[in-house]
Amino acid sequence: MKTRFVYVGIRVKDMGKSLDFYTSYLGMKDTGHSRIEETKGDVAFLQSEDGKVGIELNHYDPDSPYNSSYSVGEGLDHLAFEVSDMDEAIREATKLGYRVAGEVKTKTSRWAYVEDPDGIWIELVRGSGGSS
Amino acid sequence: MKTRFVYVGIRVKDMGKSLDFYTSYLGMKDTGHSRIEETKGDVAFLQSEDGKVGIELNHYDPDSPYNSSYSVGEGLDHLAFEVSDMDEAIREATKLGYRVAGEVKTKTSRWAYVEDPDGIWIELVRGSGGSS
Repeated sequence: MKTRFVYVGIRVKDMGKSLDFYTSYLGMKDTGHSRIEETKGDVAFLQSEDGKVGIELNHYDPDSPYNSSYSVGEGLDHLAFEVSDMDEAIREATKLGYRVAGEVKTKTSRWAYVEDPDGIWIELVRGSGGSS
Repeated sequence: MKTRFVYVGIRVKDMGKSLDFYTSYLGMKDTGHSRIEETKGDVAFLQSEDGKVGIELNHYDPDSPYNSSYSVGEGLDHLAFEVSDMDEAIREATKLGYRVAGEVKTKTSRWAYVEDPDGIWIELVRGSGGSS
């Protein structure tokens, strides 16, 4: 079947805190909000600078049928973002109060994990056009 | 900070079953596999036809420090794929033995959820260039 992967939808507990993280820290563009009465949900759509695939933040009302109890499971391993300067990206996360969950170094590569406001792991990888 | 969203990494329990689902059913391209000794993990990278963002399937060895107990949490709400024919996409899922978890209809839109082999919700949305 022919399909196109268009976005990953994550659930957030606090829309404001998550918008801050994904726009102010990770630099995504907030391209629109909507309210879906059928699911009793609020949705914010974020786009990466030159990405064709976005991230959708979903927040459900307390009485929404989708408002099941929240836990970050192991199904979502991580969301990955290229950065040009890994050390700077880690420093900025710490400065802004986001937890740096860990770092992995292999012979040829290096990456780090930062937690979003709900504890979702965000992998920072060095962009191929990166300067360091 | 300037970043680029590059992929979403999900954890899978059975690499073969998940590769079948994402390539044979959803039509993604398998663009490469790798083994990361440092994490004791196997990785397969999938790309959508014209997408710049991919999906990474992660499977960890039983003795990997990343092999925590598996559950699909609420942090990952869903992964969304555009399809040109929603009814056909739902029929094909059923034929292949994938559970159709639900359908939502609003006044202006319609979408459906199909479960991947680990229970991750895959949203089927009608592509803007779709024929039905």
